[in-house]
Amino acid sequence: MNMSKSTLQPLKGFRDFLPDTMIIRNEAIRRVKSVFEKYGFEELQTPYLEHQDVLLGKYGAEAEKLMYLFNDPGKRPVGLRYDLTVPLARVAATHPNLIYPFKRYQIQPVWRAENTQKGRYREFYQCDVDTLGSNSPLADAEILAVIYETLQILEFPEFTIKVNSRPVLFSTMEKSGVEKDKWLDVIQSIDKLDKKSKEEVETELAQKGYPVNTIKLIFDSLDTVKPDDFLQRTIATALKLGIDEKSLVFDPHLARGLDYYTGPIFETVVTLPKIGSITGGGRYDQLLKSLGGPDIQAVGTTIGLDRACDVITELGLWKNVKSTKTDVLVTVFSQELENESLTITKHLRENGLNTEVYLSDTARLDKQLKYADRKGINWLVVIGPEEAEKGTAILKNLKTGHQEEVKTDDLASRILK
Amino acid sequence: MNMSKSTLQPLKGFRDFLPDTMIIRNEAIRRVKSVFEKYGFEELQTPYLEHQDVLLGKYGAEAEKLMYLFNDPGKRPVGLRYDLTVPLARVAATHPNLIYPFKRYQIQPVWRAENTQKGRYREFYQCDVDTLGSNSPLADAEILAVIYETLQILEFPEFTIKVNSRPVLFSTMEKSGVEKDKWLDVIQSIDKLDKKSKEEVETELAQKGYPVNTIKLIFDSLDTVKPDDFLQRTIATALKLGIDEKSLVFDPHLARGLDYYTGPIFETVVTLPKIGSITGGGRYDQLLKSLGGPDIQAVGTTIGLDRACDVITELGLWKNVKSTKTDVLVTVFSQELENESLTITKHLRENGLNTEVYLSDTARLDKQLKYADRKGINWLVVIGPEEAEKGTAILKNLKTGHQEEVKTDDLASRILK
Repeated sequence: MNMSKSTLQPLKGFRDFLPDTMIIRNEAIRRVKSVFEKYGFEELQTPYLEHQDVLLGKYGAEAEKLMYLFNDPGKRPVGLRYDLTVPLARVAATHPNLIYPFKRYQIQPVWRAENTQKGRYREFYQCDVDTLGSNSPLADAEILAVIYETLQILEFPEFTIKVNSRPVLFSTMEKSGVEKDKWLDVIQSIDKLDKKSKEEVETELAQKGYPVNTIKLIFDSLDTVKPDDFLQRTIATALKLGIDEKSLVFDPHLARGLDYYTGPIFETVVTLPKIGSITGGGRYDQLLKSLGGPDIQAVGTTIGLDRACDVITELGLWKNVKSTKTDVLVTVFSQELENESLTITKHLRENGLNTEVYLSDTARLDKQLKYADRKGINWLVVIGPEEAEKGTAILKNLKTGHQEEVKTDDLASRILK
Repeated sequence: MNMSKSTLQPLKGFRDFLPDTMIIRNEAIRRVKSVFEKYGFEELQTPYLEHQDVLLGKYGAEAEKLMYLFNDPGKRPVGLRYDLTVPLARVAATHPNLIYPFKRYQIQPVWRAENTQKGRYREFYQCDVDTLGSNSPLADAEILAVIYETLQILEFPEFTIKVNSRPVLFSTMEKSGVEKDKWLDVIQSIDKLDKKSKEEVETELAQKGYPVNTIKLIFDSLDTVKPDDFLQRTIATALKLGIDEKSLVFDPHLARGLDYYTGPIFETVVTLPKIGSITGGGRYDQLLKSLGGPDIQAVGTTIGLDRACDVITELGLWKNVKSTKTDVLVTVFSQELENESLTITKHLRENGLNTEVYLSDTARLDKQLKYADRKGINWLVVIGPEEAEKGTAILKNLKTGHQEEVKTDDLASRILK
């Protein structure tokens, strides 16, 4: 025995996806992709590993502690990617012949050695959708429309897309008398308003050394500020693209933690079912250049997949998703009759039905039926000696219990009906 | 600038997949999955990282040199998976409630720090398809049928599935007077017959210390040996499942390098286009138990995806695959007419057409047309002031050059026609 008890489990924060779970995940990805592609975004995939140079210095020291960094067998410093934005910037730098505007989506895992908890994993999938090379608010509006349609197609009945803008936040800082080089510091504190009370954030800012009067001005200013022209155009265009007005809210307290945003910022909270924040993004016109890529504007969002899939699975939200993609089990009555079962199996497969033939010629029929039942297969075919002689088979619908004798040539059409 | 010239490139042996390449890869995976699911195999995914205990000691010292092994941020010894078979064994050990026979497929990347060359990468995808828990030759025959249909659906016109069996090889060893504990050693040399001449292999065996007479007996025996009963039944059943007789060849010289096979072994060579060996597999009834998993028989194959996709892309094998999934580009004539373009864009998207609207209201029309052309988008929609007044648009087919004026409400149906 080579594996100890503890290593028989996947690593903490990592998961096996067994077939019934994969059906939900694949269906979620299929739906998300269909929205992305409807808006003209196209798929990109990048390596799971990147040079450490590409990863380090982009996210801050706290993030770097969470990174999976190591030397590869050739002693190169490498790391598992931490998000999909930095690899996108690297791609823009690597491939000078990309056609701009470059509208790409990417659905792949990223790794962060965070403390695990329900819904938070160390290996998890991000669905990123970004437009590179457009300074039009239409590009920002499209990202909002994509978020809206994605959450609709995932069948979440209640959610709010919050929008704000870094220039709006900066203007409140300026009006409140905060020095320019402190703006991001204040924004980091304001970003905690979704987890902390106003009083707690005020205390934090006071501890950081901001005068009480300045803090008051900041919050007063945040209560009265209006969207700037770019954000107004973004919102207006998003509504034209079909977003329901109730689902799109200007929230001047929305700050987003990352330093690199330069324009509108977005975040979505799903309230039914209660998943919490599921998307985050915004415009980041300087990032690509600062990472060594071209001087190209960018706007986009990340949509978290794992928490969404967990909830869909746990609550059984999707009623019509089956537990198996197999349509039919063809039983094997005996070794003598295996041939008949194989002929029928081949016929069903040729007619587009996902068909299993039971992989033993000595198993009792009730065991084979139980197998189909446990897997959730809908149709069962039995060919005994009598049926074989008549060229028929017993077709049983395991959902309804109804069974009938059918000519073997008619089996496929009978099931497909 | 944070990235040096050298780190702007992906790591050696790693690749970016840009959208046109992703279309081929996704289509290949879609086709492969459709065959796997037709035979009742269901998808499994496992973590990209495993405990080192799970990975080490399973493949031999040579393989371990190629592994991406490291300590995670929590100092746990971990590694990127080297194949999909060992994770499958770990899954069988982790999840005692799996329903057997367990027919699973898994399409995910694995990592090996090999010397790179054309078609050989350090990060590459394996498509594994395995049946756990059946000792019937029908299970082996299904794997052969899956290989056959997979290569057909990938449109490779010429390939040969070679089959042999470890018991057949062992019987030739025994007849030739090789000691039982040397059988695998001899098989390792015979395995090289696809790359070396018979004389070279004879020399290698002589250098290993085998008497010339024994070596002669081994080769004579290999020339005359017949399939054993289990392999005969496997072949006969595979033919019943629909494999063309010409594509399935008993090759007593086929040995397969890995130690763990216990029954039939398979390998496929694609000769047109000239890809070479693209699948490898066989029956491995002892492996799961020896890895700490349950005492369960298993048979399966790996199908390599990357070389296949390379060739399909390079030779343009698939004539009807487009370079983009976007159907239509709606141009924007001016800021004043952006609204009209958005209304049409929304209409086309609602009718199931993947539609881009050009993300600038100041770009010249010829630039927008060139963009559609470079991306390979089929349809172009132009709304100028005259059309806007009449409620029409110009619809241009960029493939044929044909253009016509269409009522905006009829655009979707006109394109879909």
